[in-house]
Amino acid sequence: MKNLIIASTSTLHGETYLEYLLPHLALHFKNCKTILFIPYARPGGISHEEYTHIVHLAFAKINIKVKGIHEFEDPKDAIENAEGIFTGGGNTFVLVYQLYRNNIMKNLAETLEKGTPYLGTSAGSNICGQTMQTTNDMPIIYPPSFETLGLLPFNLNPHYLDSDLDSKHMGETREARILEFHQFNSTPILGLREGSWLDIKGEQITLKGGLSARLFIQNQTPKELQSESDLNFLVRL
Amino acid sequence: MKNLIIASTSTLHGETYLEYLLPHLALHFKNCKTILFIPYARPGGISHEEYTHIVHLAFAKINIKVKGIHEFEDPKDAIENAEGIFTGGGNTFVLVYQLYRNNIMKNLAETLEKGTPYLGTSAGSNICGQTMQTTNDMPIIYPPSFETLGLLPFNLNPHYLDSDLDSKHMGETREARILEFHQFNSTPILGLREGSWLDIKGEQITLKGGLSARLFIQNQTPKELQSESDLNFLVRL
Repeated sequence: MKNLIIASTSTLHGETYLEYLLPHLALHFKNCKTILFIPYARPGGISHEEYTHIVHLAFAKINIKVKGIHEFEDPKDAIENAEGIFTGGGNTFVLVYQLYRNNIMKNLAETLEKGTPYLGTSAGSNICGQTMQTTNDMPIIYPPSFETLGLLPFNLNPHYLDSDLDSKHMGETREARILEFHQFNSTPILGLREGSWLDIKGEQITLKGGLSARLFIQNQTPKELQSESDLNFLVRL
Repeated sequence: MKNLIIASTSTLHGETYLEYLLPHLALHFKNCKTILFIPYARPGGISHEEYTHIVHLAFAKINIKVKGIHEFEDPKDAIENAEGIFTGGGNTFVLVYQLYRNNIMKNLAETLEKGTPYLGTSAGSNICGQTMQTTNDMPIIYPPSFETLGLLPFNLNPHYLDSDLDSKHMGETREARILEFHQFNSTPILGLREGSWLDIKGEQITLKGGLSARLFIQNQTPKELQSESDLNFLVRL
């Protein structure tokens, strides 16, 4: 059964990388000596090696080793044999492009369905939805498809940002963009604020962290879900 | 020779649609009784008819008639025979998808190269660059390609937004996203603030409006270009 932590962000303002999640990750990955890291989203274009080193430093604090998927001959084998898997944030287009290029999108979905514990942050969370179509990222590379892992019965908008009512900027607000998505698509969207995450155990989906999340269902007024809310009802939509 | 106005936004805060541009549009389209409007970007998902009506109301103030491309049997004929053309803003993915679906991307580029006067705002400006890869929009639909009209020797980022140094939000700033683009692509990017536009006459490209624009060239520090700057030097890069 699925065993996932899907977080809006890796890092909170003024904190170190993964700091707020580490106590939860120590439990989540308690049976793992080593986790497999997927660095493909390359935030700011950093190399796979640099990115994996940042993750290594964070996981060392909870005595878990980290190995980057780029260090393996066969990325499929790496995924299937991993004790736990973490996909970090960065650019979702770059991440999805690379997952398809290495032909491991399906493989990763199947492995996570079987129960390998997983952490996603930001772009690594986006890919857990049905599609990557509510990413905030720039389309800096053309992926062969926008379809992603489909582990959730909805899509995510990580780093969800409330509208600034005092702004004089005329670009679309985050909410306007998501409502626009629903003019063309019916998949529900969960706007996950920084500090929130989803805890998924099998079909049980629970909102964690101190904040509410904003749920967008096509043709309905957006609503706020409180922390500890159960999102299983979205399976039946 | 090309004759284009390429604007960051259709509308300034507190103004009506196209208000700040109308005096310039009266000159730009002075030989046009009717212009062809391309409403494909559908801001907020509005219909082609609704969008064309908004544009009709604005152009009526300068005594120019507006006809939507959806009103024509053959969109290629509509483009080739237009006295002037305007592509409005909205979602760039939806716009590019529809231009390809109707098989008119190449046709539109060729017509504008020959000198039909053109106005683009926001998404309608984005498509004038080499690719749409520095749009701010959500990928709510999957276009067959990110390549666009290629009328400019660079890409645009409309609605360019300076970083808020006080923000505690951890999502990428606009500048960070553009620098990330340059980790994977070499095309120069011009960040065009709301109120700025480019005036293109043949190969002459001039920055207009009261504001500076931010130019990003791969492996160089971003620089501010003042209003009335000449951007022709980008052709030689």
